[in-house]
Amino acid sequence: MGQEMIHEYLPRLKQRYKPQVTIVNGENATLVGKGITKKIYKGLLQDGADVVTMGNHTWDNQEILDFIDQTHKLVRPANFPEGTPGRGFTVVNVNQQKLAVINLQGRVFLNDLDDPFRKADALLTELLKQTDYIFIDFHAETTSEKMAFARYVDGRASAVVGTHTHVQTSDARILPQGTAYLTDAGMTGPYDGVLGTKYEKVIQRFLTQRPVRFEVETDGGGQLDGCVVDLSDKSGRARQIKSFQINPDHPFMND
Amino acid sequence: MGQEMIHEYLPRLKQRYKPQVTIVNGENATLVGKGITKKIYKGLLQDGADVVTMGNHTWDNQEILDFIDQTHKLVRPANFPEGTPGRGFTVVNVNQQKLAVINLQGRVFLNDLDDPFRKADALLTELLKQTDYIFIDFHAETTSEKMAFARYVDGRASAVVGTHTHVQTSDARILPQGTAYLTDAGMTGPYDGVLGTKYEKVIQRFLTQRPVRFEVETDGGGQLDGCVVDLSDKSGRARQIKSFQINPDHPFMND
Amino acid sequence: MGQEMIHEYLPRLKQRYKPQVTIVNGENATLVGKGITKKIYKGLLQDGADVVTMGNHTWDNQEILDFIDQTHKLVRPANFPEGTPGRGFTVVNVNQQKLAVINLQGRVFLNDLDDPFRKADALLTELLKQTDYIFIDFHAETTSEKMAFARYVDGRASAVVGTHTHVQTSDARILPQGTAYLTDAGMTGPYDGVLGTKYEKVIQRFLTQRPVRFEVETDGGGQLDGCVVDLSDKSGRARQIKSFQINPDHPFMND
Amino acid sequence: MGQEMIHEYLPRLKQRYKPQVTIVNGENATLVGKGITKKIYKGLLQDGADVVTMGNHTWDNQEILDFIDQTHKLVRPANFPEGTPGRGFTVVNVNQQKLAVINLQGRVFLNDLDDPFRKADALLTELLKQTDYIFIDFHAETTSEKMAFARYVDGRASAVVGTHTHVQTSDARILPQGTAYLTDAGMTGPYDGVLGTKYEKVIQRFLTQRPVRFEVETDGGGQLDGCVVDLSDKSGRARQIKSFQINPDHPFMND
Ligand SMILES: [Fe+2]
Ligand SMILES: [Fe+2]
Ligand SMILES: [Fe+2]
Ligand SMILES: [Fe+2]
Ligand SMILES: [Fe+2]
Ligand SMILES: [Fe+2]
Ligand SMILES: [Fe+2]
Ligand SMILES: [Fe+2]
Repeated sequence: MGQEMIHEYLPRLKQRYKPQVTIVNGENATLVGKGITKKIYKGLLQDGADVVTMGNHTWDNQEILDFIDQTHKLVRPANFPEGTPGRGFTVVNVNQQKLAVINLQGRVFLNDLDDPFRKADALLTELLKQTDYIFIDFHAETTSEKMAFARYVDGRASAVVGTHTHVQTSDARILPQGTAYLTDAGMTGPYDGVLGTKYEKVIQRFLTQRPVRFEVETDGGGQLDGCVVDLSDKSGRARQIKSFQINPDHPFMND
Repeated sequence: MGQEMIHEYLPRLKQRYKPQVTIVNGENATLVGKGITKKIYKGLLQDGADVVTMGNHTWDNQEILDFIDQTHKLVRPANFPEGTPGRGFTVVNVNQQKLAVINLQGRVFLNDLDDPFRKADALLTELLKQTDYIFIDFHAETTSEKMAFARYVDGRASAVVGTHTHVQTSDARILPQGTAYLTDAGMTGPYDGVLGTKYEKVIQRFLTQRPVRFEVETDGGGQLDGCVVDLSDKSGRARQIKSFQINPDHPFMND
Repeated sequence: MGQEMIHEYLPRLKQRYKPQVTIVNGENATLVGKGITKKIYKGLLQDGADVVTMGNHTWDNQEILDFIDQTHKLVRPANFPEGTPGRGFTVVNVNQQKLAVINLQGRVFLNDLDDPFRKADALLTELLKQTDYIFIDFHAETTSEKMAFARYVDGRASAVVGTHTHVQTSDARILPQGTAYLTDAGMTGPYDGVLGTKYEKVIQRFLTQRPVRFEVETDGGGQLDGCVVDLSDKSGRARQIKSFQINPDHPFMND
Repeated sequence: MGQEMIHEYLPRLKQRYKPQVTIVNGENATLVGKGITKKIYKGLLQDGADVVTMGNHTWDNQEILDFIDQTHKLVRPANFPEGTPGRGFTVVNVNQQKLAVINLQGRVFLNDLDDPFRKADALLTELLKQTDYIFIDFHAETTSEKMAFARYVDGRASAVVGTHTHVQTSDARILPQGTAYLTDAGMTGPYDGVLGTKYEKVIQRFLTQRPVRFEVETDGGGQLDGCVVDLSDKSGRARQIKSFQINPDHPFMND
């Protein structure tokens, strides 16, 4: 359902906000909600995504190994161990400018990866030589790691947008040194499930503490969550960040 | 700073929204951000709170043991083990009606407590004999446990409002069977810290992986997050839920 | 390889130690090291097991649901949630006596189950009416939860033997009130793997932090770990507990 | 009580086994069982330790910061983040030979440190230029991480001895490529507590899920756990590893 929402609304959103770059997190893009396939990835690009970021579910569909090294637009967490297939950042050309897009993953309650703070130091040092415009998708569980990370790179990154919890937060703001921040961008997919999964199955797992085969929710409407960041023409700092939601309770209104 | 924000804005919020009952989560109310004291608790009531709920930090200030059994208005998670001091719910009289306020705590990435789902079953069965109006503060880390829980009690509770992450989510909605839901109500306290703590200290802990003494943030402005739930006169179901924020980026506007 | 070891050595061990009851943990008995099948379960009984206990992998092979309710000799953790298939204890007749065998699971770093301490209270109260001889397989990760649990039931249970880490501990002892205790009984299976799994695969997972399909180790010899508990004829207390190992470094010696 | 045990038995053990180097883990050496002080550290050296290793409790007594950079014999986990005070390995002269002692910490259920596997690669590459004799104290929670690590360095390190669980395992062995291995060396301290702590307090914490002030066990006797590794004169490989225990159930016997 996530792909349908992207297909239907991304063009309309682009018409409204006229973004220069569109970034979509695709770690839960398959029909079982885990990983991504080449076909889905291509579909996201066709529907208007410029960069697709990932997270802890990057490798859940093995097909990714067939194409991740053949593309510049699919970015997996940069702090995966040395030797990991794929790339942790990419640089997109936008008119005369460049935008670097970095994906990093937090460690609290997640995999034992390399330190995302120091990895960010290294990447920012390198990328700031090329461009002042740097977007970071920080894929993490806890609000404290996300906020601490954003504060850590405040003034060096243009924007830090969190992903992973699948629920959008309402704290979009410009941090003191000019980095736009949103703890979590939310989710695009079924509005009626729990993180995209049929809620009956999730409840069953909590109640039984036994393995339950999750199914993607197909009833009810879809939702699309996101945010728009407006960067300064003169520096890499952000002028504005605004989150938005499309769902049955907040239908997309034509202007 | 949280208390100052409550003191300054709670009366004004009450004037605006005219709530019949005001519920405040107080688990991080002390100056070190952990637990609550009698003085702070009394202050919250004087400033307009009718019920104070708690969470995983309930016992961090031992002073609570001196007064928790002497009050009906302080509620700690109901699924703490049998024999735990204090109460897991309370019933407030509002005109001719009663509102039950339950506090429950999730288990994912938190303490090993009794099952909050089954505890909710037991409490709801009992309390629905007295009243249709039931509010649940579900204190939990993950969005999946919070959403699954809300779906589980949808149609039985009037509202499920999550706490613990300290960041407000933007998903306030009425679930299909009429329960109002918000994944996290957010935080009242310093706007410039990380979950209320000086961000430099939190960053230092992530960078060093050594123990760091946290300090409450005192610079910058304060924030107050919350939500207003409107319940039907005729049933326990919710008609509306609206979240709000007061902070330097979203100042309180007099009407 | 675990089954082969049982098949080959259990009869010889029984000849040597002449146990009145033989208890085997079977949660990793299938060829992929997860769960159990009816055929394997029957094989364990034929080879001399009187009771088969389980743990956190109880449900990993769904076939268990077909027969767990038809047998008295397969015991899964008793503190699984209410309504869980199967049984949490069984009572075995031994001459004129009865031995109760309880399986419980710890909660630290494992599933969110009911409190094993209070569950033990309830079961012990009930079972001590029938017999003084009570054996507990406490399936848990941390030494602290295992030792604290054993101390908690010291004098009420005849023996507490831990499982789950797959590595035998050398701390077999009689606790002050007479309960025999061993933190972990160890594992029966391939001697050359890591917890039964090909070590190359486990290393690969640590190095890559990506999903790796584990394979049961088939090279090298097998190992069989266990312990023998001798209970008093006059009370439920233990007189002796002795752990033993059979593996290429410690071959079984005929007397 | 741990220091008393060291003071009383280390000289006798040295007389018996005549080790060329003695290594003691000291992360729980203070009277409250957390961290180490200068006085305790000096006492361990006086009683015969040549190197003191640490673990996740390294920083729990801040006094360590006053002397950790002034000594060559105190080693904290080498995979703490860059910039961490102290050293992650040391090299001890033994007659004409050198023994390198490395301390590393696992990540599963512990702090988010740098990858201990790759850190070991780097350290081994460097140290093998100086000596073939390399001892690693791998401080970790799970048996799988410990065993996988040992297999990973099998043939490069002379010995991998695990610490942290406080319970000695009975799996001392020489791995196929010649590295001596023991999953956990156990604990030196009170025999009657839970990991050195009064068991009543640990039980209370499990039962109440509230903060409980732990106290070091002072009743009952003491225990001293350890192992002796015998290395080849001609290569860095191990010829033998033997674990031993001294406690009321296994008193030290004069030869
Ligand atoms: Fe994720
Ligand atoms: Fe996700
Ligand atoms: Fe909390
Ligand atoms: Fe909190
Ligand atoms: Fe297990
Ligand atoms: Fe197991
Ligand atoms: Fe430790
Ligand atoms: Fe320790």
